Amino acid sequence: MADYKAPLKDLEFVLYDMLDYEQHYASLPGCEEANRELITAIVEEAAKFCENVLAPLNAVGDEHGCDWQDGVVTTPPGFKEAYQQFVEGGWPSINHSVDYGGQGLPESVGTIISEMTGAANWAWSMYPGLSHGAMNTLAQHGTVEQKSVYLTKLVEGSWTGTMCLTEAHCGTDLGMLKTRAEPQDDGSYRIQGSKIFISAGDHDLAENIVHIVLARLPDAPEGTKGISLFIVPKYLPAEDGSVGERNAVTCGSIEHKMGIHGNATCVLNFDDATGYLIGPPNRGLHCMFTFMNTARLGTALQGLAHAEVGYQKSLSYAKERLQMRALSGPKNPSGPADPIIVHPDVRRMLLTQKAFAEGGRMLIHYCSQLVDIEQLSDDAGRKTEAADLLAFLTPIAKAFLTETGFEAANHALQCFGGHGYIREWGVEQNVRDARIAMLYEGTTGIQALDLLGRKVLMSQGELLKRFTKVVHKFCKANEDNEQLAEFVQPLAKLNNQWGEITMHIGLSAMENQEEVGAAAVDYLMYSGYAVYAYLWARAAKTAMEHEAAEGAFYRAKVKTARFYFKRLLPRTESLVVAMKSGAGNLLDFEDSEF
Amino acid sequence: MADYKAPLKDLEFVLYDMLDYEQHYASLPGCEEANRELITAIVEEAAKFCENVLAPLNAVGDEHGCDWQDGVVTTPPGFKEAYQQFVEGGWPSINHSVDYGGQGLPESVGTIISEMTGAANWAWSMYPGLSHGAMNTLAQHGTVEQKSVYLTKLVEGSWTGTMCLTEAHCGTDLGMLKTRAEPQDDGSYRIQGSKIFISAGDHDLAENIVHIVLARLPDAPEGTKGISLFIVPKYLPAEDGSVGERNAVTCGSIEHKMGIHGNATCVLNFDDATGYLIGPPNRGLHCMFTFMNTARLGTALQGLAHAEVGYQKSLSYAKERLQMRALSGPKNPSGPADPIIVHPDVRRMLLTQKAFAEGGRMLIHYCSQLVDIEQLSDDAGRKTEAADLLAFLTPIAKAFLTETGFEAANHALQCFGGHGYIREWGVEQNVRDARIAMLYEGTTGIQALDLLGRKVLMSQGELLKRFTKVVHKFCKANEDNEQLAEFVQPLAKLNNQWGEITMHIGLSAMENQEEVGAAAVDYLMYSGYAVYAYLWARAAKTAMEHEAAEGAFYRAKVKTARFYFKRLLPRTESLVVAMKSGAGNLLDFEDSEF
Repeated sequence: MADYKAPLKDLEFVLYDMLDYEQHYASLPGCEEANRELITAIVEEAAKFCENVLAPLNAVGDEHGCDWQDGVVTTPPGFKEAYQQFVEGGWPSINHSVDYGGQGLPESVGTIISEMTGAANWAWSMYPGLSHGAMNTLAQHGTVEQKSVYLTKLVEGSWTGTMCLTEAHCGTDLGMLKTRAEPQDDGSYRIQGSKIFISAGDHDLAENIVHIVLARLPDAPEGTKGISLFIVPKYLPAEDGSVGERNAVTCGSIEHKMGIHGNATCVLNFDDATGYLIGPPNRGLHCMFTFMNTARLGTALQGLAHAEVGYQKSLSYAKERLQMRALSGPKNPSGPADPIIVHPDVRRMLLTQKAFAEGGRMLIHYCSQLVDIEQLSDDAGRKTEAADLLAFLTPIAKAFLTETGFEAANHALQCFGGHGYIREWGVEQNVRDARIAMLYEGTTGIQALDLLGRKVLMSQGELLKRFTKVVHKFCKANEDNEQLAEFVQPLAKLNNQWGEITMHIGLSAMENQEEVGAAAVDYLMYSGYAVYAYLWARAAKTAMEHEAAEGAFYRAKVKTARFYFKRLLPRTESLVVAMKSGAGNLLDFEDSEF
Repeated sequence: MADYKAPLKDLEFVLYDMLDYEQHYASLPGCEEANRELITAIVEEAAKFCENVLAPLNAVGDEHGCDWQDGVVTTPPGFKEAYQQFVEGGWPSINHSVDYGGQGLPESVGTIISEMTGAANWAWSMYPGLSHGAMNTLAQHGTVEQKSVYLTKLVEGSWTGTMCLTEAHCGTDLGMLKTRAEPQDDGSYRIQGSKIFISAGDHDLAENIVHIVLARLPDAPEGTKGISLFIVPKYLPAEDGSVGERNAVTCGSIEHKMGIHGNATCVLNFDDATGYLIGPPNRGLHCMFTFMNTARLGTALQGLAHAEVGYQKSLSYAKERLQMRALSGPKNPSGPADPIIVHPDVRRMLLTQKAFAEGGRMLIHYCSQLVDIEQLSDDAGRKTEAADLLAFLTPIAKAFLTETGFEAANHALQCFGGHGYIREWGVEQNVRDARIAMLYEGTTGIQALDLLGRKVLMSQGELLKRFTKVVHKFCKANEDNEQLAEFVQPLAKLNNQWGEITMHIGLSAMENQEEVGAAAVDYLMYSGYAVYAYLWARAAKTAMEHEAAEGAFYRAKVKTARFYFKRLLPRTESLVVAMKSGAGNLLDFEDSEF
């Protein structure tokens, strides 16, 4: 069984048949070079690297984990060599500015590649993933000098980056953070404090690590408004830009985690480490939030990654494993039993994975398209619309993809029966690795508050309407299409219900703010199912109208859309009842009653 | 934070307030001694052992795992000593026959203790758990001589037992098994074959292990009707009953698993090992199925165990961890932030766990009461009714408790945020350990087919009616109780719907057998929610009518029932739609379309 096959056919369907990336790139200034031929060549090359180099290291990474000895972190065997190949291939530079050595392709091209690196080996892919975050920070908020010193090295890949936010007493609540930055006469800062859960925080893949660190200036206001952003390199850059003196940032230990063992999750101690301010003082959180959407989409990808891998593994197993006969009579009469794919419940589990993986792919690359437009379009109206849609869709993508990714990973395991619980098949690792995604980069609960509280209610519903209008337009345009009626009619109904429920919660929240928190996660999940319903309806339409509509791939699209509408979308019905039940049944408990 | 506190108060509520175990034991022949005082004394003693000895070994077991060296298995540090204490306390003998050294208490007393040993340390508890299975087999099907040789030792605890069913190519489909048994002139058999996934298959806790092995006689018919049952001891008993010569059964390796690391999951090789037939030839599966109900309830317990432990851990964390302010304003104004228990979504996750753990406890001890009645009652009518109810409820208990137990364990982890993903808090272990329960002893899919196919439809709905009558009676008796209306009314509605859906599926299945498999898991989950609705309604009534109804514990029962009805029971609505969607959306895929 292959560890991973890049889903090139489905990517092609999503990018070109459904989302028309050809026209997308053609319409954006500076993307003229990103023609289909070039992108396809890049994607095929990346696919080979992911299948042949990264995927075989996935189990190795889990088994060996990272090693911490006297402050030095060693990554699992093969990780370093794979990273070297990655650098040699020029992959870190793909969507960064040509001014600093990048290839200048739009963000969405990086996302396509990240989907594959992530699915092949999530733990490994986090090293370049964190670098990407650091690069975005520097690109957006660094000075020209900072960019030329640090960004160039990051784009080259010879240095990597991290994002240092969390401290032991605060993860969600960054306003509480204590790391301090004392200004020095030379314009640098002395950073003092301890950060935890720093992914890719230390390792042996690259010669230097650029930490982007949140800390407080001495006179900073309390809370989130007193946080600034600093560059703290592991080694200070020498005059010539090469690696110089060791800085006073050390890895105190690495965490023993449920999964993603191949990635070093570090405690980083800053003992008067030298740092450099990025962006204006006390605006650190604001600076970080400017690319929160891309960072969260990066984590959303993880849900897709695990759904895809689990689906591939369980599908292949379900076709081979012989066990029991179909209830309606043998389907493999010459064999000792039927392959388990004949059993309806195994199909239900496979199709749930398929619908979540392919649905997730549609949402990721749809959002990624919006990122491009927001970043690159010269049409102010398009830009604003894209930004609004993205603001609305990002928390949904992050939480819904990771929640359904975990569900999918568990279905994959379940298809294997008891064998799924054993290390050898890799499906239990897939579950363990998937579990982190609902936690970091903002838990599902935090995404849900962001969606319902900050995005939907604080905009008086405007951000929701941006999206429901898109859905409405699609439904309107296809209302006479009989073939599509099975999708369009329930979608149109859902789209109305979405507004009604939002109104309902909004009104309750005027009485009691806690109603927002009480409904938030159910609201987010509801929204996720609704967004997928729109995308699956579009996919069905695209497949039906495709010139190769008779082919298995396109027939399957329509059938998977049907499965989604019949078997997964109905979950919204329970969510509506739960949401409408109000906060009372949660709040009416005294502490002694738990 | 304590690793585990035995929930004695809730056990008392379930056993005495709700299920009237006093009257239960008083009404059963041979249980006269099982008065409340005695049982309470036993339970309190067991609780201490579980809290002080077993629970502290739970993380140790996970961390160290079992060791296999040259065919010899060593359990984690402390496991052997704990087992010795268990034996010295007489715990293995509690509900086994006085004729073989047991204490002769009913099965349900053992279940109460198993709930606590399981929650304290599931991996450890599997060693005595498997012994219990072997004891039940011997007690029911062994000859007097077999009982006196083997059962006595097992009851004493100086030997343990296993159940050897699975082979590499068959788990669910035991009809395919290949292990062979050749009759010898002395009446024994030579056993030849290899078994996998044998829990507690080899270890250093006891001086001998009694394997109960499924194998085929030379002239056996194919399939499940050609399977016989054998005793294959690790060491052959000497003349005087002590441990004699080593038998040719060896542990070829142990599995590397996602969880339950403290339990040795073995490959056992039988190389012409000496075995002894138990029960009639070719009736092995039948013999094993005679106590399938108790075995499956034993696994159902695991769901409860992980829900309880996760709830305890996450509740305690949620009261201590300070992060963010309540949306409606500070609840802990003098602290730097509010404890996370103020946030509605954290409450939702805590209450979901609470409702599943306490609901699971009700179902387990309700079923356990039926086991007693089936085994011990001298009233043929009561016996049959109990057997029918048990046949119906067992697959529900096994699958629903383990599915919701896994869900609960994941909520517990989620309450910890990123910290939940780290080994130190034990909540990620709890998730990993919980994951096996939906697989072994029949997967959720298999339980679902057993419920819908074998139990409900094959009895023409009679077994369902047995239970819905119980529910109906409860609803009727309380229809004028206004305080209970919020529970009784939806319960009565649900009870009718249950019958309707069953009829609907039954009719579709007459057209196409595959409809059973297509609806089965959703039907099982629906049934689980319905059964819990009945139990939670009863719990609410019991709490309201309790002399201490004003106390926090009893108020909490009513509020948790309300939470259950408002937030969890609505899941049935989605399940109904999915079930009614029929098999078409699953079957209509060719293999090439996956």
